[in-house]
Amino acid sequence: MPPVYEFDRATAVVARDGHRIHDVTVDPGWTIGDKPHGGYLLAILARAAADAAAAVEGPAHPHPLAATATYVAPPALGPAEVHHEVLRRGRGMSQVRARLVQEGRPRVEATITLGRLDPDAEPWWGGTPVPVVPAPEGALPSSTTGPSGMTLPIMDRVDIRLDPATAGFREGRPGGGGELRAWLSFRDGRDPDPLSLLYALDALPPATFEVAEANGWVPTLSLSAYVRAVPAPGPLLVRQRAGLVEARLVDEVCEVWDVRGRLVAQATQLAAIRTR
Amino acid sequence: MPPVYEFDRATAVVARDGHRIHDVTVDPGWTIGDKPHGGYLLAILARAAADAAAAVEGPAHPHPLAATATYVAPPALGPAEVHHEVLRRGRGMSQVRARLVQEGRPRVEATITLGRLDPDAEPWWGGTPVPVVPAPEGALPSSTTGPSGMTLPIMDRVDIRLDPATAGFREGRPGGGGELRAWLSFRDGRDPDPLSLLYALDALPPATFEVAEANGWVPTLSLSAYVRAVPAPGPLLVRQRAGLVEARLVDEVCEVWDVRGRLVAQATQLAAIRTR
Repeated sequence: MPPVYEFDRATAVVARDGHRIHDVTVDPGWTIGDKPHGGYLLAILARAAADAAAAVEGPAHPHPLAATATYVAPPALGPAEVHHEVLRRGRGMSQVRARLVQEGRPRVEATITLGRLDPDAEPWWGGTPVPVVPAPEGALPSSTTGPSGMTLPIMDRVDIRLDPATAGFREGRPGGGGELRAWLSFRDGRDPDPLSLLYALDALPPATFEVAEANGWVPTLSLSAYVRAVPAPGPLLVRQRAGLVEARLVDEVCEVWDVRGRLVAQATQLAAIRTR
Repeated sequence: MPPVYEFDRATAVVARDGHRIHDVTVDPGWTIGDKPHGGYLLAILARAAADAAAAVEGPAHPHPLAATATYVAPPALGPAEVHHEVLRRGRGMSQVRARLVQEGRPRVEATITLGRLDPDAEPWWGGTPVPVVPAPEGALPSSTTGPSGMTLPIMDRVDIRLDPATAGFREGRPGGGGELRAWLSFRDGRDPDPLSLLYALDALPPATFEVAEANGWVPTLSLSAYVRAVPAPGPLLVRQRAGLVEARLVDEVCEVWDVRGRLVAQATQLAAIRTR
C-alpha cells in the first residue's frame, strides 16, 4: 500500500447523499493556536468540490485552477460537512460552490474553478522571477511556538524555513519591508501537488509581522488563490508581501515557485489587523 | 429631485419575497460587444447584497470591502434575479453570498464582505505609489469601437483616457509591457463611490492587449476586488497589469487611485486567453 501522508489524511472527504454532501474532519493538527489553518480549510473544500464534479462528469477536471474563500467564522475542530453545488460543467472547466458547515451554519464559503493542468505546459509570457533566497539548509527552521507563546501544531507537519533577511520579527526586530520569504515542505515527504498549493498560498506567517511588532492574530476575511502549474517534486519557495494597511485591514499577495523556479501559484487576501 | 445617474439606474435593485430576491435588469448600455461588463455585474450583486444586509440589520454596512465573483455563464441582456443569503452579521462587517440568476440558472456567483469605510481614514503603512500619467487632457480618449470592429456601448457611458505610453495596441503595436494606465470617469458626471469602484476594477481593456497583438475576447473566470477607501470626487487613475500567461490563462492585477493619489481599490482576476 502506498503511504498515507498527513495532508491527505487531514483533507479526506467522504461523499454521501449522492455526492451532495461530504463528511470531513477539521483536524487538530493543522492549526495555528486552536484555530484551523485557512489554507488547509480551502484545500478540504477544493478536494470535496473536485470529488463532487467527478461524480457528475468523471475525472476530467481534477485540479483547482482558481479558488476563492470567504471566512465566515472559525470552524470548531472535529466533524464538519461540505455542502456543494456544481454551477457549471464545461468542456475545459467546471465551477463548484462549496461551503464548510457545522451545526447547520456556514463557516467557510468558497467557489472553486476546476480543470486539468498539463504537467508539460510552459509559460507563454510574464511571471515573476523567482527571488534569490539562501538554500533551505541556510534558512531559519520554523518554530512550533508563535508570537506571545501561541502553539503552532501545524509546524509539526510542515517545515517552513525563513530567509534570514526576512526573519527580523523572530527577534522582535521587524525589517520594515512587509515581506516574508521561505522554503516550504511537508515533514513526511509528501510532494506538492495542485491541491496542496492551496495550503501553501496561506502557509507563511502574516507578512505584517515584518512591518511592525506583531499585534496578534491577523484573521483572513477573503482569500483568492490561482494554481498555475503542476509543481515539480521538492520544496516550494513562498513569498508573502503586505500591501496597504488602512482602517484595520491589510491586503497581502503570495507567490509560490517550485524547485525548478517556476511560478506555480498566486494568491491575494484581505485580512483584519490591529494597528496602534 | 437629485439627478439619476446612468450607473445608478443600470444597477438598480428591487427587493421582493422579504428581501430574499432582488429583481434587476442587465442593461444593454453596459456591454462590451453584446456581453454585459463583468465589473458592472459585480456592482449589481454588491448593491443587492448591501440591500439584503440592510434589511436584516439596518444600514450599518453599506460599503463592499471585499467582493469575489465567479463568472459561470454570460447573462443575457434584460431581466434577472439576484438570490442571496446573509452568511454572517457581525458588528463591524457582514458577509453575503449573492447569485445572478436567469431562467433558474446561475450566471455569476459572488461573495461580498460589507462594512463601513470611514471617509477620514488614512493609510497606516504601504500602498502602491500613484503612477505618473499625463493629465486626462493629454491622454487618448477611448473609442466606442474595440479590436476587430467590436462595438463598445459602455464607452458612451464612461470616459477612459489611456496613457499614450501604454496605448501602442491601439495602433497595432503593443508595447510588450503588459500594462495599461488610464483615467476613468463617468460621462454624466457621477462621482466615484465604493460601489462604482467595483466597476472601475474591471474597466480597462485586457492588459494582454499590450503583450501581443489582440487575440480576441479575454473572458474573466474569477475576479476578486478589495475596496480600501472612499474615493474623492473626480477622475480615477486605473492601472491594469498582466501577470503570467500560461496554459491559456492569464492573471491580471488592477489598482485604482483617486484624484488625491490615494490607493482606493485593488483587484486580481484570472481570465482565459487565446495564445498562438
